[in-house]
Amino acid sequence: MQNTVAIVGGGVIGGGWAARFALNGWDVRIFDPDPQAQRKTQEMLAAARRALPGLTDVALPPEGAVQHCDTIAEAVTDCALIVEAVPERLEVKQAVYAEIEAVNTAGIIASSTSGIMPSDLQAKMTHPSRLIVAHPFNPVYLLPLVELVAGKQTDPACIETAKTLYAGLGMQPLHCRVEIEGFLSDRLQEALWREALWLLKDGVATAEELDAAIAYGPGLRWAQMGTMQTFHLAGGEGGMRAMLAMFGPCLKWPWTKLMDVPDLTDDFVEMVGDQCDAQSHPRSPRDLEKLRDANLVGIIRSLRAANWGAGATVRAHDRHLADAAGIAAPLDTRDLSKPLLTVQRVVPLDWTDYNGHMNEAKYLQAFGDATDRMMELIGCDADYIASGGSYFTAETHIRHIDEVHAGAMIQVHTQVLAGTGKKMHLWHEMYEGDRLLATGEHFLLHVSLATRRPSDPSAQIAAALGAVTQAQAGLARPDGAGRAVGAPR
Amino acid sequence: MQNTVAIVGGGVIGGGWAARFALNGWDVRIFDPDPQAQRKTQEMLAAARRALPGLTDVALPPEGAVQHCDTIAEAVTDCALIVEAVPERLEVKQAVYAEIEAVNTAGIIASSTSGIMPSDLQAKMTHPSRLIVAHPFNPVYLLPLVELVAGKQTDPACIETAKTLYAGLGMQPLHCRVEIEGFLSDRLQEALWREALWLLKDGVATAEELDAAIAYGPGLRWAQMGTMQTFHLAGGEGGMRAMLAMFGPCLKWPWTKLMDVPDLTDDFVEMVGDQCDAQSHPRSPRDLEKLRDANLVGIIRSLRAANWGAGATVRAHDRHLADAAGIAAPLDTRDLSKPLLTVQRVVPLDWTDYNGHMNEAKYLQAFGDATDRMMELIGCDADYIASGGSYFTAETHIRHIDEVHAGAMIQVHTQVLAGTGKKMHLWHEMYEGDRLLATGEHFLLHVSLATRRPSDPSAQIAAALGAVTQAQAGLARPDGAGRAVGAPR
Repeated sequence: MQNTVAIVGGGVIGGGWAARFALNGWDVRIFDPDPQAQRKTQEMLAAARRALPGLTDVALPPEGAVQHCDTIAEAVTDCALIVEAVPERLEVKQAVYAEIEAVNTAGIIASSTSGIMPSDLQAKMTHPSRLIVAHPFNPVYLLPLVELVAGKQTDPACIETAKTLYAGLGMQPLHCRVEIEGFLSDRLQEALWREALWLLKDGVATAEELDAAIAYGPGLRWAQMGTMQTFHLAGGEGGMRAMLAMFGPCLKWPWTKLMDVPDLTDDFVEMVGDQCDAQSHPRSPRDLEKLRDANLVGIIRSLRAANWGAGATVRAHDRHLADAAGIAAPLDTRDLSKPLLTVQRVVPLDWTDYNGHMNEAKYLQAFGDATDRMMELIGCDADYIASGGSYFTAETHIRHIDEVHAGAMIQVHTQVLAGTGKKMHLWHEMYEGDRLLATGEHFLLHVSLATRRPSDPSAQIAAALGAVTQAQAGLARPDGAGRAVGAPR
Repeated sequence: MQNTVAIVGGGVIGGGWAARFALNGWDVRIFDPDPQAQRKTQEMLAAARRALPGLTDVALPPEGAVQHCDTIAEAVTDCALIVEAVPERLEVKQAVYAEIEAVNTAGIIASSTSGIMPSDLQAKMTHPSRLIVAHPFNPVYLLPLVELVAGKQTDPACIETAKTLYAGLGMQPLHCRVEIEGFLSDRLQEALWREALWLLKDGVATAEELDAAIAYGPGLRWAQMGTMQTFHLAGGEGGMRAMLAMFGPCLKWPWTKLMDVPDLTDDFVEMVGDQCDAQSHPRSPRDLEKLRDANLVGIIRSLRAANWGAGATVRAHDRHLADAAGIAAPLDTRDLSKPLLTVQRVVPLDWTDYNGHMNEAKYLQAFGDATDRMMELIGCDADYIASGGSYFTAETHIRHIDEVHAGAMIQVHTQVLAGTGKKMHLWHEMYEGDRLLATGEHFLLHVSLATRRPSDPSAQIAAALGAVTQAQAGLARPDGAGRAVGAPR
């Protein structure tokens, strides 16, 4: 029965657990009386398969089997781990534990409750020492946090076992050492949630406005640092102590509905300051700020892909900047007899290694962006691609000439070596100022997106590409074009 | 005086404003009586230069000039925009406005206050209609959110002007339509912050534990969706209405210190449900879940770079998986006479375009990872690199043979074509199952990291690379090796 988990309750949380366990190689037995449970679990598994396996840089083990059971007894018999994920009603959960205990007296029972005290959950159990809370966060298959909480009667060894077990599922166990309603994460979330409900109730803002107030600002910070460390850095050189001195008086002001607040005694301020220092040790505030900024750049840039949230804001700014910089200038306003400016950007922090050098793959990223711009210039833009045609890269040859660091402004200039029929042969040169950093030779074919086979481009594109090719025909063939890897220089 | 901003107050917020304006091409005049202000502003500018310019895919305009002024009058004279960023004390701010009004009667005065009502700020002004709140978030040069709030006497045109102006700085203006203490974002943050202070005060958790309770779970969601949309999706097929039915009763439980909560009347539940539906329109909940998951994958993977937060959790999981999958198996346990397995992973969502195809640059990312693994196998690992030697890629040739989608398991097998002296010549083949997707031919040179010039590797590395080279000498030369771009097949 090694690596078999029983899950009682197959909703959003139970289904999410099933997906995380199964995709990490566990066999799963699931019970839920809902006639739709099987369909919902399969949909959850499909969603998890789409997202989780690629989260890691190494493939997950082969997927475990997911079996739907008709009774709790069938699901939990002989299981060493039983996950409870039924509705948040104490009597419902206690009734489930009684059913489990009728057939299983030894397995760890891990409740997914968002905030009911484990001491209450285990109060009527025959073998209460095996009950723990293991509280996950939706989507359970992606978010790493799991809060572990013991009740008064819980065997501490169960918490230690659980730490190892959930870490093996790629999760981040957080042992909540003091038992309290709502534990840690939900107390913090619940405070924000209750305040949000007041703002809705009072007509101060809409749901969409309240969400914008988080996702474009504080939420970006919270993805990498909690409130304590965030404010520790916002306090500038004085850290958390300066923050408390500055904003402590606000605690007496009606900046939320929560007006019962702790007194900021000297002892309390010292304790909080010490804890923030300890948390950050051995990093200096300045080092932490650099790390925070690099994380923020990475997070915001990752949101570009879906043109969502802060990523959409940056994209809009990009369009504005491209117009101003002339990157977006159409062909008929350019001197076609010279290589065309296709990229003008600064090397971002998320393109570099820990030493600040641009990563190997990002050279191709920049050349790929240059190719995309070249395609747009000749009319192969989003509308054209939506109509069913595009260029696919068949071959690429990159030469790394010199190094470049984060923060450097780079430009890519693009020469068309050939552009007739289905073929487009490009030569990109990447510069920082006058310094040549790399060259990229790219051979592309126009394809039909329906058949994925080579096809002729539209007459308009053929004409535009032809005009550039002809205008640049007099340029010297670049040094290095047509070169094979390792050939003598 | 176009594109000149005056900033009164040069602390964390005022300095952050100076950096955002200057890096977006504005001239900045700054006043702060702190003798350290100039140094602090320069440090803030340096931090901003490191992070902001690369956030966009197009370079920012040339940086504006930053001038430190000795008086408020010198800073604000003739300025059309005056940013106030002095401490959160009403009388201090009002005194600053009086100084401003003595020399400037027309410019918009934008207070950075975190929560003081603009009606109070403007109460003693001679020309109060030009005062607005424009509340940013630290670090001001990176986070897009700016809350715009009008006081009772504010000219609505000032808010409209501000929306355009801050959007031009790459920011996301959020107009808080109803004037309330703490506005929107800080009311929500403040609720969480007050709860956190209670948990510290009561000894329930440390600062570090409270931060973990956010950054590994809810914070990852908040970087892309606020609480309303997050819970709308957590409600499963029933959305926010199901969520309120499930967790509404918890509002009566002591899950936070904030016990004064709105009643969940039917009307209120309907209103909140309607607003959540409207916010998500026209996307279905299932589409939003996909988008959320792709964002989460991107955010978590972006945190890998610094081995931080949820990114560190995934890295730890990777090491565990690499051991289990044999990817990390040392050379002396492998059959060296065949190409070596160097990558076994699933194509992640953040490696693909909107159609789910793997992006061009990610082929090189995977081949670069294969090269890194090959380096580790021959002993060029983190310790060796820290000692001052490494391999740099000089040339790369990629052939794209077939397409691959997100979710596909890919493997890279690596053949050593040559490996003597400073040179390492690798041939990577990428497969999905038996299907060849791409080949990568890579020529690397061993370099001294001190001189950045070619140098001999350690004897141990030379021996290990030599052993692989010799063992694979009998393998056929791969089809396509030595090929130049565009050469006939």
